[in-house]
Amino acid sequence: MNNNDLVLAVDAMGGDFGPPVVVPGALSAARSTGARVLLVGQEHAIRESLDSLPARDRPEALYDIVPASQVVEMEEKPSEILRTKKDSSIQVACRLVKQGQARGIISAGHSGAAVACGMFILGRIPGVERPALATILPTEKAPMLLLDVGANVECRPHHLFQFGLMGTTFAQDILGYENPRLGILSIGEEEGKGNSLVKSSYELLKMAQHLNFLGNVEGRDLFTGNVDVVVCDGFVGNVALKLSEGLGTSLTNVLKRELLSSGLLPKVGTLLARSAFRKFGKMVDYAEYGGAPLLGLQAVAIVCHGASNSKAISSAVAMAATYVEKGTHKRLVNAISANEELTRYARSV
Amino acid sequence: MNNNDLVLAVDAMGGDFGPPVVVPGALSAARSTGARVLLVGQEHAIRESLDSLPARDRPEALYDIVPASQVVEMEEKPSEILRTKKDSSIQVACRLVKQGQARGIISAGHSGAAVACGMFILGRIPGVERPALATILPTEKAPMLLLDVGANVECRPHHLFQFGLMGTTFAQDILGYENPRLGILSIGEEEGKGNSLVKSSYELLKMAQHLNFLGNVEGRDLFTGNVDVVVCDGFVGNVALKLSEGLGTSLTNVLKRELLSSGLLPKVGTLLARSAFRKFGKMVDYAEYGGAPLLGLQAVAIVCHGASNSKAISSAVAMAATYVEKGTHKRLVNAISANEELTRYARSV
Repeated sequence: MNNNDLVLAVDAMGGDFGPPVVVPGALSAARSTGARVLLVGQEHAIRESLDSLPARDRPEALYDIVPASQVVEMEEKPSEILRTKKDSSIQVACRLVKQGQARGIISAGHSGAAVACGMFILGRIPGVERPALATILPTEKAPMLLLDVGANVECRPHHLFQFGLMGTTFAQDILGYENPRLGILSIGEEEGKGNSLVKSSYELLKMAQHLNFLGNVEGRDLFTGNVDVVVCDGFVGNVALKLSEGLGTSLTNVLKRELLSSGLLPKVGTLLARSAFRKFGKMVDYAEYGGAPLLGLQAVAIVCHGASNSKAISSAVAMAATYVEKGTHKRLVNAISANEELTRYARSV
Repeated sequence: MNNNDLVLAVDAMGGDFGPPVVVPGALSAARSTGARVLLVGQEHAIRESLDSLPARDRPEALYDIVPASQVVEMEEKPSEILRTKKDSSIQVACRLVKQGQARGIISAGHSGAAVACGMFILGRIPGVERPALATILPTEKAPMLLLDVGANVECRPHHLFQFGLMGTTFAQDILGYENPRLGILSIGEEEGKGNSLVKSSYELLKMAQHLNFLGNVEGRDLFTGNVDVVVCDGFVGNVALKLSEGLGTSLTNVLKRELLSSGLLPKVGTLLARSAFRKFGKMVDYAEYGGAPLLGLQAVAIVCHGASNSKAISSAVAMAATYVEKGTHKRLVNAISANEELTRYARSV
């Protein structure tokens, strides 16, 4: 089962819970995909989490421990982490990839640090100015990819253009969409609606080769399942992502309160609610999809929510394994270089 | 009951359904508030809708019909409507206010036309550069005001600053919050997070007099009920508004499907669902709050959703009546002029 080419570096110290959650998640994905995971972080803590697993769940061929002594605190600035935390798990994990000992990284730690270390240690795909953080959102039908959701607070049209190229490639390989429908997030469906960034980006996306560009989509189209990839600047995308999380939670709270206080045959109500909540919960449960790929780097990098559980970590590691096996990186490089001239033109205007 | 000072011009032709929906809504608000409504539009259509109401629901003291021959089509551009549709219901309604025959307008028609006619016929409060469209959103606790939601696609810091001043005043008078907690929509709670527009606007809001400024809020904070007024540029606000509508609808669809297919004691399920949906539906039902005030004009102007039902129209007319009775306009003028120097400084940098 073990695949020697498929080695992934996992930031074992990341996330709100660290090794007790990350280690079982990583091992679970290793067992199901055949990937080998390098568990990066403080050795004793990782060892302790490994020891708490049944022996059959941690075959030695599936993992290695790579020590990293420093821990990143959530309130530290990415630039300081880069400079002062050379032996942090995220930096060590990135260097393992840079040195060819692993094919990608997975981290649920400080996401700003992951983006900064990804940019400066792994480096960018030639021609990519801004890597984008992409998130997979549930919809009424199949999942949808939204990017950028926070790596780039201010964007220019050629950035959104490249987000469209990268998002389309990722959706083909990882979500399995043959010809993903691509939209740009705006405030009206007609061409010409939106702010100046949207209007100029629209022009570029229309001219690109091999894109199934639908044009503008609105906020209300994100969850219908009628578009597969949506691009926007990282400010708008981050607001949209957090708003979706928040509204999902608030609606669930209201519904729970109401079901509890309705007093109608409580037991049946509970059964029914449990059933309804299964699917409902799935729709607002971002753990389902594991992590957010940071697209545009020289290797796969998956950033997970700090509150990730083992299932989310496992999904993220499995996503990285698929990415490596499908050769997605090579296809991203090709998509960027095939549109190099258009990008260069856009950058110059 | 009738209040001679309280006359409101209602665009009877507006909305997806026109007079059959707008006329009963306007009359219902007139009866409950004592306002007199000027029903502006094609006389025979308005008369027909009036005749279909029971006589006791349309006392003659409560309304007048003001003829307007032209109809605005949804695909027309606001600039063209201004130039070529001088006798449209929205233009005639605005002129009634301009000439002192009414104190405000309510329209469920073409919202771009309402904004343009409001700007150019009613005019702006001295010192206000950009009127803002504000929307009242439901939360887990009390309603919240979000502005701008689409009148200004590109904004500068002094615009967001004035949105904060106007939103606070409106929330005091219309939502009844003594000291509304004001936030700016960003992608991190700490000062210094966000794009350059947010950072500069933050500085201004911090310096303003009489504002209860909390600082940055995130997308996930919009529905918790822990902030009363949130400012953002019209692009971000429009995306946020439509996303909320869309996600609410999609979650409701998923939940309905699940409850239907669960097969658990269908009848009890229906009862329970109906009860749960009452509150749940209220949370995503924007008709509840009627309309979006366009703040910063020389009179009250309420823009309603095209799909408004009579209840939404009635709520919007009642909101306009409260606005007039409370003297909100005067208080908006004062809030703007009290911060004139800071605004002028911000505009110059």
